Amino acid sequence: MSVLVIGGNGFLGSSLVEGLRESGFAVRVLDRTPPRTDVDWHDVDYRIGGLDEADTLANALDGVERVYHLASSTVPGTSNRDPVHDVSSNLVGSLNLVAAMATAGVRRIVFFSSGGTVYGNPERVPVDEGHPLRPISSYGVVKVAIENYLMMYQQLGVLDPLILRPSNPYGPRQSTSGMQGAIGVFLGKALADQGVSIWGDGEVVRDYLYIEDLVALAIKAGASNECGIYNAGSGIGQSLNELCALVRELTGRPLPIEYQQSRAFDVSKIVLDISAARKCFDWSPKVSLREGLGRTWRALQSI
Amino acid sequence: MSVLVIGGNGFLGSSLVEGLRESGFAVRVLDRTPPRTDVDWHDVDYRIGGLDEADTLANALDGVERVYHLASSTVPGTSNRDPVHDVSSNLVGSLNLVAAMATAGVRRIVFFSSGGTVYGNPERVPVDEGHPLRPISSYGVVKVAIENYLMMYQQLGVLDPLILRPSNPYGPRQSTSGMQGAIGVFLGKALADQGVSIWGDGEVVRDYLYIEDLVALAIKAGASNECGIYNAGSGIGQSLNELCALVRELTGRPLPIEYQQSRAFDVSKIVLDISAARKCFDWSPKVSLREGLGRTWRALQSI
Repeated sequence: MSVLVIGGNGFLGSSLVEGLRESGFAVRVLDRTPPRTDVDWHDVDYRIGGLDEADTLANALDGVERVYHLASSTVPGTSNRDPVHDVSSNLVGSLNLVAAMATAGVRRIVFFSSGGTVYGNPERVPVDEGHPLRPISSYGVVKVAIENYLMMYQQLGVLDPLILRPSNPYGPRQSTSGMQGAIGVFLGKALADQGVSIWGDGEVVRDYLYIEDLVALAIKAGASNECGIYNAGSGIGQSLNELCALVRELTGRPLPIEYQQSRAFDVSKIVLDISAARKCFDWSPKVSLREGLGRTWRALQSI
Repeated sequence: MSVLVIGGNGFLGSSLVEGLRESGFAVRVLDRTPPRTDVDWHDVDYRIGGLDEADTLANALDGVERVYHLASSTVPGTSNRDPVHDVSSNLVGSLNLVAAMATAGVRRIVFFSSGGTVYGNPERVPVDEGHPLRPISSYGVVKVAIENYLMMYQQLGVLDPLILRPSNPYGPRQSTSGMQGAIGVFLGKALADQGVSIWGDGEVVRDYLYIEDLVALAIKAGASNECGIYNAGSGIGQSLNELCALVRELTGRPLPIEYQQSRAFDVSKIVLDISAARKCFDWSPKVSLREGLGRTWRALQSI
């Protein structure tokens, strides 16, 4: 079976591509960037382009039975600076994709939404999928709008969408540059024997999911006939301070923390209820935070 | 106090303008169309322009203390034909408005969302504001996205938004041309001694709110300090068949019905729970459907 991974060159996308190849899929990638050099993707049909290019999209969809859509031109931390850009690229781009899929007759799409932003500051944790959606970043608002369009096109008989709401995925290949993903950043700083800056008092709670567990869910859920929306997390909350302590323990580095003023668009606590995904896809997270951090640390040291 | 009504020339907008003038407000209108000729608006500061014109927006906001945003370039029944247009005009336009308000320091916005489309096919009726949002038209998806941005900008300390979700408003000035609003169309057909076409079997249920009741709520709620989201309906469900029977009775016209295949993007039943608006704004609908239909019929005959 041939699958298309849009945004297949990033941290999540490239990890998914690896998982799909190992599972025997013929993988095509559509990404804006030239292919990464740390992989041997001789068997991957790699195409450079974006969701604003109708011909590229039509060609990329030819012969494909399933689409994974992970492309995003923004991250939560900066999306509020230019919401019009967020909408014009990510929401309109996703609508272009839907139109191209309808034309090509490709019905199955697995969309990577965002469990960390669509709920906003939750009323309760763990948060199940029925919790009200009150995003406080443009990134989250746009993810909700894309979800709504996909579910609408299911009801209109056009698509078979499966939507994953990942919490905070982490693992090897995650950027250490600081735009997104505390674990990548913390380990990068540890490696460089530097300290970290934290927005707020470090008591912000997140749900960290090891990338292999997320990839396993995306492949299982994508292969199923289920449609709908599923949280994809570990189900366990961890504060930034706890995370730093664990990084110190595992790396043996001091990792001093500099606390900075908190940001209004950061949610204070998010832990996902993952019982729906557990039940529907016979899936559960296998890699503990300690184990996953260790693997990520070793991968980082070997680069 | 000076208020700006964006989209002030349409059915809802012009009725709101009348209500605001009667309540003593200095009213400015921004609308894409030249002013209607059936009103004496010598005291209205009328400006022609759209949400894509930054200078026009900035000028229109100058000296204003409250904004009513009713502009829409689409209607539910046709929005699915071109969702990219829907997003590019209505969502991006609303973001332009928010940016202009932030620059001008105008915090209060009353946004007319859509109680008839944001919920999709509800799990239960009457529908309260906490019901999941599962729109099945692009019109509804875009309204949800605008709501989410407005509520986000409240949390970020930029706006004081009040969002109304009107059900199916009706009354004098409603179009009889058939794009939106069953009552206008039915009465128009009755006046022309013609029959009506109904999508489906006529058992589709809607919640009809007389325009004066909606205007009263918009003025009361806008003047309050409340922020948040409020249904604006009658709280009473009425099928299209019941509505036709009432129109026949009041008009004395035969109004034959031709039933056509139902449309996938029409919700089957929607009735709004209006207890929040009743409680917060000391408001309740005053005009019964029978009374409102009679008034609308008389207005139509006198044109």
